[in-house]
Amino acid sequence: MKKEKKPIPHWKFKLHEVIYEADTPAGKFFDIAILIVIIISVALVMMESVSSLLYEYAWQFYIAEWIITAIFTIEYILRIIAINKPKRYIFSFYGIVDLLSTLPSYIGFIFGGTNLLFAIRALRLLRIFRVLKITRYIGESRRLMLALRNSKAKILVFLFAVLIICIIAGTLMHLVEGRGSGFDNIPLSIYWCIVTLTTVGFGDIAPITPLGRLIASIIMITGYGIIAVPTGIVSAEFSKATKPITNTQVCPNCNEGRHLDNAEYCHNCGFKLNE
Amino acid sequence: MKKEKKPIPHWKFKLHEVIYEADTPAGKFFDIAILIVIIISVALVMMESVSSLLYEYAWQFYIAEWIITAIFTIEYILRIIAINKPKRYIFSFYGIVDLLSTLPSYIGFIFGGTNLLFAIRALRLLRIFRVLKITRYIGESRRLMLALRNSKAKILVFLFAVLIICIIAGTLMHLVEGRGSGFDNIPLSIYWCIVTLTTVGFGDIAPITPLGRLIASIIMITGYGIIAVPTGIVSAEFSKATKPITNTQVCPNCNEGRHLDNAEYCHNCGFKLNE
Amino acid sequence: MKKEKKPIPHWKFKLHEVIYEADTPAGKFFDIAILIVIIISVALVMMESVSSLLYEYAWQFYIAEWIITAIFTIEYILRIIAINKPKRYIFSFYGIVDLLSTLPSYIGFIFGGTNLLFAIRALRLLRIFRVLKITRYIGESRRLMLALRNSKAKILVFLFAVLIICIIAGTLMHLVEGRGSGFDNIPLSIYWCIVTLTTVGFGDIAPITPLGRLIASIIMITGYGIIAVPTGIVSAEFSKATKPITNTQVCPNCNEGRHLDNAEYCHNCGFKLNE
Amino acid sequence: MKKEKKPIPHWKFKLHEVIYEADTPAGKFFDIAILIVIIISVALVMMESVSSLLYEYAWQFYIAEWIITAIFTIEYILRIIAINKPKRYIFSFYGIVDLLSTLPSYIGFIFGGTNLLFAIRALRLLRIFRVLKITRYIGESRRLMLALRNSKAKILVFLFAVLIICIIAGTLMHLVEGRGSGFDNIPLSIYWCIVTLTTVGFGDIAPITPLGRLIASIIMITGYGIIAVPTGIVSAEFSKATKPITNTQVCPNCNEGRHLDNAEYCHNCGFKLNE
Repeated sequence: MKKEKKPIPHWKFKLHEVIYEADTPAGKFFDIAILIVIIISVALVMMESVSSLLYEYAWQFYIAEWIITAIFTIEYILRIIAINKPKRYIFSFYGIVDLLSTLPSYIGFIFGGTNLLFAIRALRLLRIFRVLKITRYIGESRRLMLALRNSKAKILVFLFAVLIICIIAGTLMHLVEGRGSGFDNIPLSIYWCIVTLTTVGFGDIAPITPLGRLIASIIMITGYGIIAVPTGIVSAEFSKATKPITNTQVCPNCNEGRHLDNAEYCHNCGFKLNE
Repeated sequence: MKKEKKPIPHWKFKLHEVIYEADTPAGKFFDIAILIVIIISVALVMMESVSSLLYEYAWQFYIAEWIITAIFTIEYILRIIAINKPKRYIFSFYGIVDLLSTLPSYIGFIFGGTNLLFAIRALRLLRIFRVLKITRYIGESRRLMLALRNSKAKILVFLFAVLIICIIAGTLMHLVEGRGSGFDNIPLSIYWCIVTLTTVGFGDIAPITPLGRLIASIIMITGYGIIAVPTGIVSAEFSKATKPITNTQVCPNCNEGRHLDNAEYCHNCGFKLNE
Repeated sequence: MKKEKKPIPHWKFKLHEVIYEADTPAGKFFDIAILIVIIISVALVMMESVSSLLYEYAWQFYIAEWIITAIFTIEYILRIIAINKPKRYIFSFYGIVDLLSTLPSYIGFIFGGTNLLFAIRALRLLRIFRVLKITRYIGESRRLMLALRNSKAKILVFLFAVLIICIIAGTLMHLVEGRGSGFDNIPLSIYWCIVTLTTVGFGDIAPITPLGRLIASIIMITGYGIIAVPTGIVSAEFSKATKPITNTQVCPNCNEGRHLDNAEYCHNCGFKLNE
Repeated sequence: MKKEKKPIPHWKFKLHEVIYEADTPAGKFFDIAILIVIIISVALVMMESVSSLLYEYAWQFYIAEWIITAIFTIEYILRIIAINKPKRYIFSFYGIVDLLSTLPSYIGFIFGGTNLLFAIRALRLLRIFRVLKITRYIGESRRLMLALRNSKAKILVFLFAVLIICIIAGTLMHLVEGRGSGFDNIPLSIYWCIVTLTTVGFGDIAPITPLGRLIASIIMITGYGIIAVPTGIVSAEFSKATKPITNTQVCPNCNEGRHLDNAEYCHNCGFKLNE
């Protein structure tokens, strides 16, 4: 692997095209192949966590893990070779994810252990973020993200308000229900309030006193009512995103494209629009 | 049943009108009669599943089943006779449903068994899809389906994101809560995450450790917040679908196309609109 | 109480004004007074259901009941006297409610019994519908009802679809989970499906088998996703109701008030609108 | 501290600027410092409620409490000194909260007790409302509040309807399920109805009889359906609030009032708009 100072050797250019891009058939194939390996690897981690399966198919899991680790290692090396400035990949989000999901397998093979080992192996699940990358094929996801990003500030304010409601209601419930009834301390009561306000309602903790049940009712109705807030925010955002300004006129003078439906003159330069 | 090469014999034409169409009184009557038989048959399958009822009214159920099977068999045969190209019906969705919901009863009568028999008989429930057909009478359902179909891509992306959140959060919960607390393996933890994120919250499995409860709180608040996303998508779609101006009149004078539903004169040039 | 054939005696007119209308101070006072008695009566029925309270304050409840029954009886008689055509009141919805909520108390006093007696007395709760009448003071409720009524057809179609999903999913769960696990028969499984799909999730019945849990996950995600449908329907309806046509032009010729934003001619009579 | 009749001494003016305003760096620093102390104080109250922590770190909590009480006391005195008309602060909402959250600590130190003491100390949590004040930095919260305030009347009507549904359904469930099944009295049944209608579903109380389960199903589906109402209300309100055209410019030439936010020329007559 002689390091040439000439622009980029052809094989490197080709490799980059296959590994980093998805325009060519080979690039698409590589992406899908890696995706399948990731899904298999995620499925393996899940199955290994089932005790009965782990004991029965111990060595099959062992072999499968070696194969997957090998594939990911090769992919990692190829990605470093294929790029001109490897640091750009190594320290990128996906670069770190790739390293974190490959390296621990080796550590796991060298050292033993059961619980820690598994926790380390579960890091491989991080690769699932890679799957998210395929959403770039689906144009819709960009619009979804945009609508969510636009309403981020409003949603944060809302969640902040929810948290304060939960802290106050949780403290109240702790004082009303007292110890020994599941509301033993304030953090636990706040946890219960979140469970209740979000309408999840596990039922492992439930109020017993009449006053506690009254407060619980108020919390529930509040939660039932204010779910409208994030929904309203995102709905409004989507409405805006899907029917912004439906006019397709473009100003022949300044090329401005956003016009009101009944516009006769360009709002940007005052040029007469021809309909 | 001589096969004539002449167009279609009158009785066949008549039969087709009654069985496949709903424009004539006879056709409407046939549709409603079959609908009632289906509903009775569905009710019977439900009641048979209740042990106490099954033991008490064993032979009544037996007779009712024979009658319903007979009716469905006759209907199936009539449908094949009435149509000119029977294959078109036999291999259509409703044709397969009709066969699948009639045939097993005969198999059940021939062979015995209790559990398997019931499972086979439950296939008759498939006929319920036929009930959906009546929704064609209700124009609203078409609009609902349209709005859902338009937002299908966005909703799939959303469900995909929900699934990835559940996989990562489920693995995390398994590692945090450990074995013996209901989070025994990752698939189970993912199941719990889905139960929690969708705000169902059965409570058969619930976190016990403080850290597990903290993660659970985050999952719950996430679920409470992101329910806004499908809602927002569908709301925006409905808003678009029910936009006030659905009038298709076009002014014969100035060609203006947007008119109120009750417009009699063009709002743009004052010309009388012909309806 | 001589029955005069002359129009309406003054006292009867006055009484009608007080009892049936709410424009005069006396009428308002009467309405509010009856409202308070109804709320007290509802509160009494609630408290009587609490065993400990019933035993302790038995005769106080007895007296309170007599007083309330007396007030309602007097009100009922007055309402019959005050109106010119008593049948119109007696056979109206509120007339029947008033009778049904007064009569049983007398039956209860004559015959004894405990359980049945209470069930009969609970009929008095029907009066609570009267409270709904005060909502006529709140203009908003009319708009709410209108939006709900407009989307009734769509919501019914939706609920019908939900029911069919529950029937099929319930049968499936019954077959998968089998007897002895809470999914003992199909109606019970359908009940569980409704509990799950609506994201209530009591947890008294929960799937145990992996396949059952997989189906449950699908039901939950479906329920989480399709809650968007009624929300979307009603949202769109409200959007329409709150920002219909914002134009405030009124045709000087035909007085038509609904015009498109850019209307220059009245869509009703073709008259030129002055802006 | 001589009381001068001259306008406001410079140090008082300075102090006011630091304590009550957030425009200067010192003012911002003071706000953030107090915020951090409040958060620490809230965290302390939470931790003290955990028995194990309280016993282990008893004296650390004691000292921390003294320090925080001292800081709040100094802040309270400074706020009174800094303002020209102290009564305006003392009897304001935040003035009362500040007093209520400081005074009890002293009472707690003087008298002993454990349960009551804690309840009193928990009053300090009221300070959390102060945190809400920082939301003034986030412009979004104002818009959220506005949308909620505008839909207040509609939401109240809705909650009132929910309450009446719960009262009637609760009475029905009490009568159907009878005593000994968790639906022992009407208030309890109403509590259960609220739990169910809001789709929380704890599961500590659940219907057992078939009829009870049928009613429960209806309640659940109602709750699942009518959640659309508050959501629809708030969505419509948000849509209105975020409508694309919020521009208040009016064309000086043709008086056209609807312009895009970035319009520079009137879209109707092409006249230059002055901003």
